[in-house]
Amino acid sequence: MNSSDPFATSPKADKATLRRHNLSLVLRTVHDAGEATRAAVAGRVGLTRAAVSSLVDQLLGDGYLTEWGKTFSGQAGRPGTVLKMARTGPAGLGVEINIDYITVCVVDLAGTDRVRLVERLDNRAAAPTAVLTQAARIAARALESAAEQELRPVAAELALPGLVSGGAVRQAPNLGWNRVAVEGVFAQALSALRPAHRALPVSADNEANLAAMAELWFGDVVGDGAGKGAGKGASAHDGTGRVTSFIYLTGEIGIGGALVLGGRLLRGAHGFAGEIGHVVVEADGPECRCGARGCLEQYAGQAALLRAAGLDESSGAAGVAELESRARDGNKQALAALEDAGRRLGRVLSGAVNLIDPDAVLLGGVFRGLMPWLAPAADAELTARVVSGLWTPGNGRLRASSSSGDAARGAAARVIREVLADPAAYAERGTN
Amino acid sequence: MNSSDPFATSPKADKATLRRHNLSLVLRTVHDAGEATRAAVAGRVGLTRAAVSSLVDQLLGDGYLTEWGKTFSGQAGRPGTVLKMARTGPAGLGVEINIDYITVCVVDLAGTDRVRLVERLDNRAAAPTAVLTQAARIAARALESAAEQELRPVAAELALPGLVSGGAVRQAPNLGWNRVAVEGVFAQALSALRPAHRALPVSADNEANLAAMAELWFGDVVGDGAGKGAGKGASAHDGTGRVTSFIYLTGEIGIGGALVLGGRLLRGAHGFAGEIGHVVVEADGPECRCGARGCLEQYAGQAALLRAAGLDESSGAAGVAELESRARDGNKQALAALEDAGRRLGRVLSGAVNLIDPDAVLLGGVFRGLMPWLAPAADAELTARVVSGLWTPGNGRLRASSSSGDAARGAAARVIREVLADPAAYAERGTN
Repeated sequence: MNSSDPFATSPKADKATLRRHNLSLVLRTVHDAGEATRAAVAGRVGLTRAAVSSLVDQLLGDGYLTEWGKTFSGQAGRPGTVLKMARTGPAGLGVEINIDYITVCVVDLAGTDRVRLVERLDNRAAAPTAVLTQAARIAARALESAAEQELRPVAAELALPGLVSGGAVRQAPNLGWNRVAVEGVFAQALSALRPAHRALPVSADNEANLAAMAELWFGDVVGDGAGKGAGKGASAHDGTGRVTSFIYLTGEIGIGGALVLGGRLLRGAHGFAGEIGHVVVEADGPECRCGARGCLEQYAGQAALLRAAGLDESSGAAGVAELESRARDGNKQALAALEDAGRRLGRVLSGAVNLIDPDAVLLGGVFRGLMPWLAPAADAELTARVVSGLWTPGNGRLRASSSSGDAARGAAARVIREVLADPAAYAERGTN
Repeated sequence: MNSSDPFATSPKADKATLRRHNLSLVLRTVHDAGEATRAAVAGRVGLTRAAVSSLVDQLLGDGYLTEWGKTFSGQAGRPGTVLKMARTGPAGLGVEINIDYITVCVVDLAGTDRVRLVERLDNRAAAPTAVLTQAARIAARALESAAEQELRPVAAELALPGLVSGGAVRQAPNLGWNRVAVEGVFAQALSALRPAHRALPVSADNEANLAAMAELWFGDVVGDGAGKGAGKGASAHDGTGRVTSFIYLTGEIGIGGALVLGGRLLRGAHGFAGEIGHVVVEADGPECRCGARGCLEQYAGQAALLRAAGLDESSGAAGVAELESRARDGNKQALAALEDAGRRLGRVLSGAVNLIDPDAVLLGGVFRGLMPWLAPAADAELTARVVSGLWTPGNGRLRASSSSGDAARGAAARVIREVLADPAAYAERGTN
């Protein structure tokens, strides 16, 4: 049977599997609605009221749901209590290790950031093990704060600016890391610091992938309910600005990228898709840290932008703030640098749009604040070069990413998504 | 519920739906195996022998399957007859309308090309309606041949070199077509010629998409059984050279492209993904028929290749044969033209590989015969620029497409895939 079969054979379902499935269905229904009565859940999922009550009892017992107050349905009948996601219990730990900062956050079942620790440091100056140990130290402090809030992270997800696969960073050019077994090193460092968390599962992914998922789950311009399946040729644009097919670009010291199509991350055959920062712009351009020449990163990455504007390319966030300020003041060199970067971004993006045909392109990281000066040139290139003719100037398809998600939150939220997909697997005390 | 939910709610299944599903399951099992006994089918699909017999009886009665001879299982027990796909009955009609040819083929349930008609003509010289009417004429002749072979095409699929969506060509730059309602015009022309086929459903897609599907279904370097799902980060390479994630490029007068990931065609949000021919190579390069400047097509398309080699750019297949012959003879201008095109192909492909992370890149159309001279330069660019480091010279990931499939066969085979997915919907006399 090939994988494009429209009728895939369903896996065998027994009673226990069905109950686990239905526990997830009920939990996700409350999660997506924010709050709901048992009757509303029953109506939504198409199960009997009795079946839903039994499932809800288990979810209450396991600490996934809480009951709040009383509501009247507006119709005859007895009032029902409202179910909400628990603010304590299972949580996700997200750890973003980037070039010049480490962010750790703990997200609860509702997706809320409950703990957040950020340290600015130069991770290029230290060995990978030292950086991962430092990240574990910050994570240990976050776990203490989480415990005080009665949150119990059930897994950790690391976000890293590089090619990640099989628990390891294959290559992170801007960190200078090659073949670093990040999951193992971090897990060991954390369990040395917090023996109680020795069994905490640790996984890792590319930071742009996780930032893109945060955008999908939490972004104000991107929603997750309206998505048509990818590959159906249907636009996922629903007229309210909510899109589920987008290219996500994040300007950091390097440029990270991720592709989301029909609400799903496009990973590629080996997990390395989305490396838009290393698409070639000029065949004989400046050498890139990846070893090739003329990559987009060398024209529109943070260092390249600062350099072209006459600023210290290693001046980091302060330099970017200065660049914004100069652009706002009409400084010619700053404006020319941003226009040139925008044009090159637009050219590479037009190629990516011709290949992938997404609904939108979202720019995050340092690009967010620089949008007023980057976007016009980029938009003009996209308008001229997108062959479908579906790109018109200022049509809103090139946008700043929202500020409500980042890679750390995306990482923590991915843990929550796994809990929602099979709550029984994460219950501290099974009543099943 | 969002579309990335690992547990999507299953659609309600009643008894009739289940039987239709199981008819498809049994038919596809025989299709994929080539031939099988009832017992082998039962073992494969996990249904009882009695259930399979009942389903097989219906499929025999509806003319989807035939019974052949007797086999002995090699174990004790009575001999079973062998089931094969019927060589008569439901079939698919594929119609490829390209710049300088029209190909029509009829494919049977086993996927075999049973009728094939090709006409070489200049479709740029005629109005769209005239071209579609000519295609209908050829299709009518193919339907006559099919009837003589007792084949009954149940639907037609058109393959066109352009952006196709909603039954229309939005834009086909090399044909000079804009907003042509191809499905309707073709269906009308065919029903005028063959009133008996008035009800034949007609659909349309991009020719590179359909050629890529032919490659997936029939190619000798690409199989469809070993595919891991796209988006799982796993390589679909199974060591035998069978891949299910690839970029497909076809060199025609233009350059067509398609992306197949995990055995599925990547369509994009509006159905326009895969337009690799219009990825920019030089921002200020020659004007392209799409309206932009410096598209890949202007450097590596057939006309560009012929021109750079000092040949008449409109000399078509004869010119390409001459180019091959000159390259074989060591003609410097021909070799330089091919090396330059190969380098530019390689640059654009390296960007596409960095974005999509496929297992392979397959070159079809005129590129097939030119591989010996295009591939080395393209491979060198890919090796230098693919950031994952997974591209090494001559690793076999850049390949000529196989000769066993083309867009016309892919189009006809797509009809067969739909029949296999729900045979009951296409049965002439329902016994259900």
